[in-house]
Amino acid sequence: MSCTEHQEENLSKAAAGVTAAAAQGAQIVCLSELFRSRYFCQTEDKRFFALAESIPGPTTEQLSQLAKKNKVVLIASLFEKDVSPPLYYNTNVFFDERGEMVGKYRKLHIPDDLKNHYGEAYYFQPGNLGLPVIETRYGKIGALVCWDQWYPEGARQLALKGAEIIFYPTAIGYPVDGRGGVTPPSLNQAEHEAWQTIQKSHAIANGVFVAAVNRVGVEDHLNFWGTSFVADPLGRVLQKASEDKEETLVVDCDLGLIDEVRADWPFLQCRRVDVY
Amino acid sequence: MSCTEHQEENLSKAAAGVTAAAAQGAQIVCLSELFRSRYFCQTEDKRFFALAESIPGPTTEQLSQLAKKNKVVLIASLFEKDVSPPLYYNTNVFFDERGEMVGKYRKLHIPDDLKNHYGEAYYFQPGNLGLPVIETRYGKIGALVCWDQWYPEGARQLALKGAEIIFYPTAIGYPVDGRGGVTPPSLNQAEHEAWQTIQKSHAIANGVFVAAVNRVGVEDHLNFWGTSFVADPLGRVLQKASEDKEETLVVDCDLGLIDEVRADWPFLQCRRVDVY
Repeated sequence: MSCTEHQEENLSKAAAGVTAAAAQGAQIVCLSELFRSRYFCQTEDKRFFALAESIPGPTTEQLSQLAKKNKVVLIASLFEKDVSPPLYYNTNVFFDERGEMVGKYRKLHIPDDLKNHYGEAYYFQPGNLGLPVIETRYGKIGALVCWDQWYPEGARQLALKGAEIIFYPTAIGYPVDGRGGVTPPSLNQAEHEAWQTIQKSHAIANGVFVAAVNRVGVEDHLNFWGTSFVADPLGRVLQKASEDKEETLVVDCDLGLIDEVRADWPFLQCRRVDVY
Repeated sequence: MSCTEHQEENLSKAAAGVTAAAAQGAQIVCLSELFRSRYFCQTEDKRFFALAESIPGPTTEQLSQLAKKNKVVLIASLFEKDVSPPLYYNTNVFFDERGEMVGKYRKLHIPDDLKNHYGEAYYFQPGNLGLPVIETRYGKIGALVCWDQWYPEGARQLALKGAEIIFYPTAIGYPVDGRGGVTPPSLNQAEHEAWQTIQKSHAIANGVFVAAVNRVGVEDHLNFWGTSFVADPLGRVLQKASEDKEETLVVDCDLGLIDEVRADWPFLQCRRVDVY
């Protein structure tokens, strides 16, 4: 989805998307990163801390009702304000299909990259809740956040803990005004392909499904890549959204394929934990 | 390259390839996995232990001369027999451009997969030499072997130790007679793409060059994929060989690109070693 400056509009749109997905049979729904607001991390501005909210809080209350009403497991990315002293996190919240909040993850890897418009270190503490796997009615799931996607370690740990699907709520794209004025289109393309390659590789290395859920639209300096996709345990892209349109992808993931692929490629079996 | 039952023929062909590569300006040359023989691991047969050889030994002596004569750094994959009690390894040997043996690596991850024709556990002990990085005149290099390529951990450790190029001598392909009789072409294609994806992902995750050096030809049950390639730190494939022809790829790797890519994507900087 794309996001506007109107927080309630973004939440309503997300709710409509969840409802539409559920109507098409979705069992687990994941929203994109920080969907409540525009991607404010492009500048360091203290007024944006006002966007942060407590968990539980008003937004999680609405998301809980949304999950319950639609009988879906729901993963939502929020700008979290923890209590005194106030500490701020980039947080995923998990709700089960009865609306219970059943898990929380705080983004581990925080990009400190204002020059490329990802100045997140100003806003977010590095996560301190480890790498939880949530057992839900529809499968064992984990959800990391955006920059985490470049780290094989996170996906590996989730898979070792039993995750069958790994979600990546994301807000990533390319700078519309170049990188120091010299961003050839070929570089944008290479980075966009790299983003897809690395996430497919997590599916392959671990024999799991991977769902990347990205923002679309242009905000300030960034043109978000869109192209949300789901890859199966062989890294095959089952469905992929467009680069610039909002879409609700409903993708059938046959979890039986996990054991089937791992029978031929038992990579998790042979790790040399004595060496690395 | 493809390999025949005649060991001396394979060595001569490899030597001709090294010489041809050097004549085209190659500085570091990597041969494919176990290039001295056919890929014998498709069956468990004790007579194949006779192919193993000591390191140093007659083959490394010839390879040393070859490196020295051509003034190249040379990486060669050998079936190693260690001394009493005899232990056997799938081993990479590194020679510098003066012909000195400057490093050795023993394959860490050994596929125990006779049903898919990679019955290596019968022949090879898991490696016990860790993950060495070799500083050469032409760059800091590491070399893993075939099945290691599915493990992000190996590439990560090499990069953290300073490797700029990671080589993967390899012998991988698809079963010509199906997998239990039911290997759809789409599965072969998916596996072949996954093999390329996972190795490109090592380049991306670590900001290094990756060179996959694979066998070609049909031997018994396996049709090797060929398609040796070199990827740059953004995962872009700089050159790729064909699926079925022997080729000597000489690929220019601008090591300056490593720092350039890592300046935008400093993934190694932000690892959460406290968590994983």
